[in-house]
Amino acid sequence: MSPLDKYNTRAKKINSLLCVGLDSDFEKIPDRPQKFKSLEFPQFEFNKWIIEETHEFVAAYKPNIAFYEARGDQGMKELKMTMDYLIKNHPDIFTILDAKRADIGNTNNGYVTSIFDWLGFDAVTLHPYLGGEALKPFLDRKDKVSIILCRTSNEGAGELQDLEIEGRPLWQIVAEKVSKVWNKNNNCILVVGATYPEEMKRIRSLVGDMTFLVPGIGAQGGDIKAVLEAGLNSEGLGLIINSSRGIIFSENPKEEARKLSGVINQYRFNK
Amino acid sequence: MSPLDKYNTRAKKINSLLCVGLDSDFEKIPDRPQKFKSLEFPQFEFNKWIIEETHEFVAAYKPNIAFYEARGDQGMKELKMTMDYLIKNHPDIFTILDAKRADIGNTNNGYVTSIFDWLGFDAVTLHPYLGGEALKPFLDRKDKVSIILCRTSNEGAGELQDLEIEGRPLWQIVAEKVSKVWNKNNNCILVVGATYPEEMKRIRSLVGDMTFLVPGIGAQGGDIKAVLEAGLNSEGLGLIINSSRGIIFSENPKEEARKLSGVINQYRFNK
Repeated sequence: MSPLDKYNTRAKKINSLLCVGLDSDFEKIPDRPQKFKSLEFPQFEFNKWIIEETHEFVAAYKPNIAFYEARGDQGMKELKMTMDYLIKNHPDIFTILDAKRADIGNTNNGYVTSIFDWLGFDAVTLHPYLGGEALKPFLDRKDKVSIILCRTSNEGAGELQDLEIEGRPLWQIVAEKVSKVWNKNNNCILVVGATYPEEMKRIRSLVGDMTFLVPGIGAQGGDIKAVLEAGLNSEGLGLIINSSRGIIFSENPKEEARKLSGVINQYRFNK
Repeated sequence: MSPLDKYNTRAKKINSLLCVGLDSDFEKIPDRPQKFKSLEFPQFEFNKWIIEETHEFVAAYKPNIAFYEARGDQGMKELKMTMDYLIKNHPDIFTILDAKRADIGNTNNGYVTSIFDWLGFDAVTLHPYLGGEALKPFLDRKDKVSIILCRTSNEGAGELQDLEIEGRPLWQIVAEKVSKVWNKNNNCILVVGATYPEEMKRIRSLVGDMTFLVPGIGAQGGDIKAVLEAGLNSEGLGLIINSSRGIIFSENPKEEARKLSGVINQYRFNK
């Protein structure tokens, strides 16, 4: 039993690998169908609307906490309200906090408590730079998923990640360490950006059926066909494909979510 | 004019390189001299007491946000209250948020807003794994200090940081990139753990007079003499030496702060 079963069960049930990023930047929240910004809890009310519009096509939701911290304790409160709402109304949808955390040893307990126990997320994204020993408080949580940054989707990702160690780039070493050592509780995922399908293909060949969280579709220019060809595992799963702005700030989030999950399936079953 | 001048001015004025880590873990907050835990704002009240006991020996304060996030929006509120108190009562003391953040590009704007503008910190700690392009929203803030993790103090730091790229360990590459490229606004600092004085010596030889934030003294076992010998710059400065638990949870925080700043100066001037 892996804590990732929740994602796989949901993905199979609704036949979708789509993750919607609840990157609800206050400044970008629209005035329709409601004047969200004039409400008492604008980020929560907007998220609630997005969730109700999109959930039937969604296997996972992934808020990025930076957009909530930008509003201080009020933002944190609305992130908590969003999670309470999700857990109550859609308990079978997998939840990821994109927080890109990692401190040393016991200090991580603060994040573990906050993200897994107070907010109630199923998974969190983590930086690998401090090593697996530092991440122990996360990795030891067998009931939760640790998502390690491996090959990120940004343009300058290669500055450190492409450095070669005896012929192997750093992202490859991270992929190998996570799959062979850090994943002993079978609760790790790798972040592999949609903007680097060649690297994704190589990582898939190295780590077996591990799951990848894939940012970079849409606004960042990642190509869906290339991602599906490079990243699907032997079970036709193994990918959590995220889109944020392209769905939540579109004219019709429901239609965009429906469309994207459909396009993913088109390449998924005809690759 | 560098945003680090605030630290250097304070350090010279009170003749101290001491940074006190406000790692005010709720569970560890003592019952004396007040029953802090029974107050409405326990972390804030404890911090206020620690600040009043220690400030005359302190050049910088460094809360680690994990201990506040552990208490959700309430903890964030008390962190904000702590900063409001510091800015009002001790505006010349340098303030660092140990948050170990780093997301891609514009997402970092949320953290920039939260940490520099809402909370009002002078500096923040950052992971290097996504590269300098991703950190631009932090690095572009000429009025604020970006503190990049280079060689961390934890036991397992070497798992990635010691990997060799054409004979140079990853921590050395990070030190060189930060000092030569990322620091173009003269607003970067490196994290170099007290537990690795040999690496600190090497980094000092590579980066000139850049400042290091030095965790790992005290509870983690770092040796003060070795740190001073390895890390002081040509001006007898260049170090921000942090102690957290060893001061704030001691029987007498004032005495521990006085003693540690004195021991640092002893080796600083007789090295």
